[in-house]
Amino acid sequence: MDKHKSLGITQTKYYTFAETPNEMPLESGGKLGPITLAYETYGELNAEKNNAVLVLHAFSGDAHAAGFHKGDDKPGWWDDMVGPGKAFDTKKYFVICSNCIGGCKGSTGPSSINPKTGKPYAIDFPMITIVDMVNAQRQLIDHLGIKKLLAVSGGSMGGMQVLQWVASYPDMVCCAIPIATTLKHSPQQIAFDEVGRQAVMADPDWRQGNYYGHKQPERGLAIARMIGHITYMSDESMEEKFSRKLKDSNYSFSFKTDFEVEGYLRYRGDSFVKRFDANSYLYITKAMDYFDLSGGKLFPAGRKINTRFLVIAFKSDWLYPAYQSKEIVHELKIRRVEGTYCEIPSTYGHDAFLLEIDEQAHLISHFLNTAYENL
Amino acid sequence: MDKHKSLGITQTKYYTFAETPNEMPLESGGKLGPITLAYETYGELNAEKNNAVLVLHAFSGDAHAAGFHKGDDKPGWWDDMVGPGKAFDTKKYFVICSNCIGGCKGSTGPSSINPKTGKPYAIDFPMITIVDMVNAQRQLIDHLGIKKLLAVSGGSMGGMQVLQWVASYPDMVCCAIPIATTLKHSPQQIAFDEVGRQAVMADPDWRQGNYYGHKQPERGLAIARMIGHITYMSDESMEEKFSRKLKDSNYSFSFKTDFEVEGYLRYRGDSFVKRFDANSYLYITKAMDYFDLSGGKLFPAGRKINTRFLVIAFKSDWLYPAYQSKEIVHELKIRRVEGTYCEIPSTYGHDAFLLEIDEQAHLISHFLNTAYENL
Repeated sequence: MDKHKSLGITQTKYYTFAETPNEMPLESGGKLGPITLAYETYGELNAEKNNAVLVLHAFSGDAHAAGFHKGDDKPGWWDDMVGPGKAFDTKKYFVICSNCIGGCKGSTGPSSINPKTGKPYAIDFPMITIVDMVNAQRQLIDHLGIKKLLAVSGGSMGGMQVLQWVASYPDMVCCAIPIATTLKHSPQQIAFDEVGRQAVMADPDWRQGNYYGHKQPERGLAIARMIGHITYMSDESMEEKFSRKLKDSNYSFSFKTDFEVEGYLRYRGDSFVKRFDANSYLYITKAMDYFDLSGGKLFPAGRKINTRFLVIAFKSDWLYPAYQSKEIVHELKIRRVEGTYCEIPSTYGHDAFLLEIDEQAHLISHFLNTAYENL
Repeated sequence: MDKHKSLGITQTKYYTFAETPNEMPLESGGKLGPITLAYETYGELNAEKNNAVLVLHAFSGDAHAAGFHKGDDKPGWWDDMVGPGKAFDTKKYFVICSNCIGGCKGSTGPSSINPKTGKPYAIDFPMITIVDMVNAQRQLIDHLGIKKLLAVSGGSMGGMQVLQWVASYPDMVCCAIPIATTLKHSPQQIAFDEVGRQAVMADPDWRQGNYYGHKQPERGLAIARMIGHITYMSDESMEEKFSRKLKDSNYSFSFKTDFEVEGYLRYRGDSFVKRFDANSYLYITKAMDYFDLSGGKLFPAGRKINTRFLVIAFKSDWLYPAYQSKEIVHELKIRRVEGTYCEIPSTYGHDAFLLEIDEQAHLISHFLNTAYENL
């Protein structure tokens, strides 16, 4: 696997649909429109249009999965996995990465202009769910002229969308690759999300969501992100990276930063608020908490499911523990759906889906290759 | 073990020492005085003064370990363990529970009046450490006329004080019972504490610590406590208690409380701010983060240690995982100190030291009894 081959310069595209009066119905009973989706594509769609792979990002990700945006020195969030000769080999596959609705990275979300008022939606934005995210992506896939996806893949919230794709449109998904994800949030996962939301909403700068035109609730959002970062790493990976290393040579005996881990969290919190909208944080965490395909809801009743699964979990991931991936596999067994489960022995915690490249790439490239050759 | 026998009405006493010009020197290089310690005692000190057991509370605990305060319908925090016929049998032992300095439960802390200014210390309170907490308790034990403690016991931060008692005054401790604790905070433990502190300090009501006479930083402190509660429970115990149960029959599709676990955390956060001082939160978490008896510091070099240990951990405790208790046991082995290790198979997480009574009581009463009979 050559990690160094890059797609070079890539760029984000936009697709707008669901314009008045054809707003998209939402799971909550509301409607949303017009909807813009930010997305990127890499590689070429073949003549048969059967080599398309949809890649879906985690909670705070975006459409920019691979290559470099002009002037940037950092590539997209899954550049190690998407490109020529990589797991999602752009010499063979047409890779699409779609941003989700509700976010703040070019797709319609609470910071977008509400056409009815000419102002940002703020918390008048309707509650969206993983079902709605997938329904919007479906429109994009139709727009690109694709009838059936060779694969849908993603980690964390991206993995929830993978599962929802199968639940909503099983005939459109040849292969599903849910990574470090779950059929439903446990109370512990809901709890971490809820504390983050409360931190945002407790910040007076949140102004009941109407902070646009003012500074955003930076302190609350930074706290929320700091909590997040603890859950993305493992006890082991924090020990390896920070142990009890001090910033200076002695304890400060004050509330300044003593330990490197403290400085790291503060830095991560502070940089997050520059790139992410606080209301999007609220909406998207809520979408994850509402998600629930447990108890047989993964597969529409009475339908033969031909989708093949590769389910990947990471040993040290305690935010989306391996037992949750095994629950997905259990659903496959019950419905006699073909699937492989792999638990990768990483110490990176939940972040492993972004960092543990070699074994993940090996599994995925082999799985995709077999599927593609047997089409 | 009869859990229903109660000590009846108990009350908190106070001991003041280190008055000017005899302030107590602190590990940070500062001084503190006068110092008041709130404490309770249960049972009778025998004529030989060799039946005293010191019980130490966790982070947000207090001196009120057992029995009922007049008018209260809830007993002390370890009432299941302390009383006639219980693990710490007050028919046999003289049990002392000392509150820690830095707190807000009757002992000197940041909300106490600074004699130099006539106003609350706020963040002019000197930084205190576990060493200082134990040095203050040592004064109380001297005051009570006790030369050697039969046992020192406590869970979580109480366990750190147990270890520090042995490190500071090994000849004064016959038995040590550290429960669900550690020789040092890992970066993950520091990280959770730091996020809590940042949440408090980000609240504008914190006013750089000078909120006395105003309302306290309730929102920030509630967030900190919510994070704490997630870490005190286990993934399993949250699943057992809450699963995905809703408060109402349907999703609200809003930012109101949907899930029972959300309501529980909000309730816990809101009730904590009524009983705990935000600056004490900052000082005490910092004391825990600074604590470090790893790498041979548990036992003074070159001294024969006669203290016997009973080290208890709980299987589902991920805040103070069992491996940290095993590190204590490792130190015992290196120095040929007598000790027993027991990992109790509880699902309660870190809270188990307060909830998993039967097995804990069985272990402790047997251990104490043997020690007492062989004095």
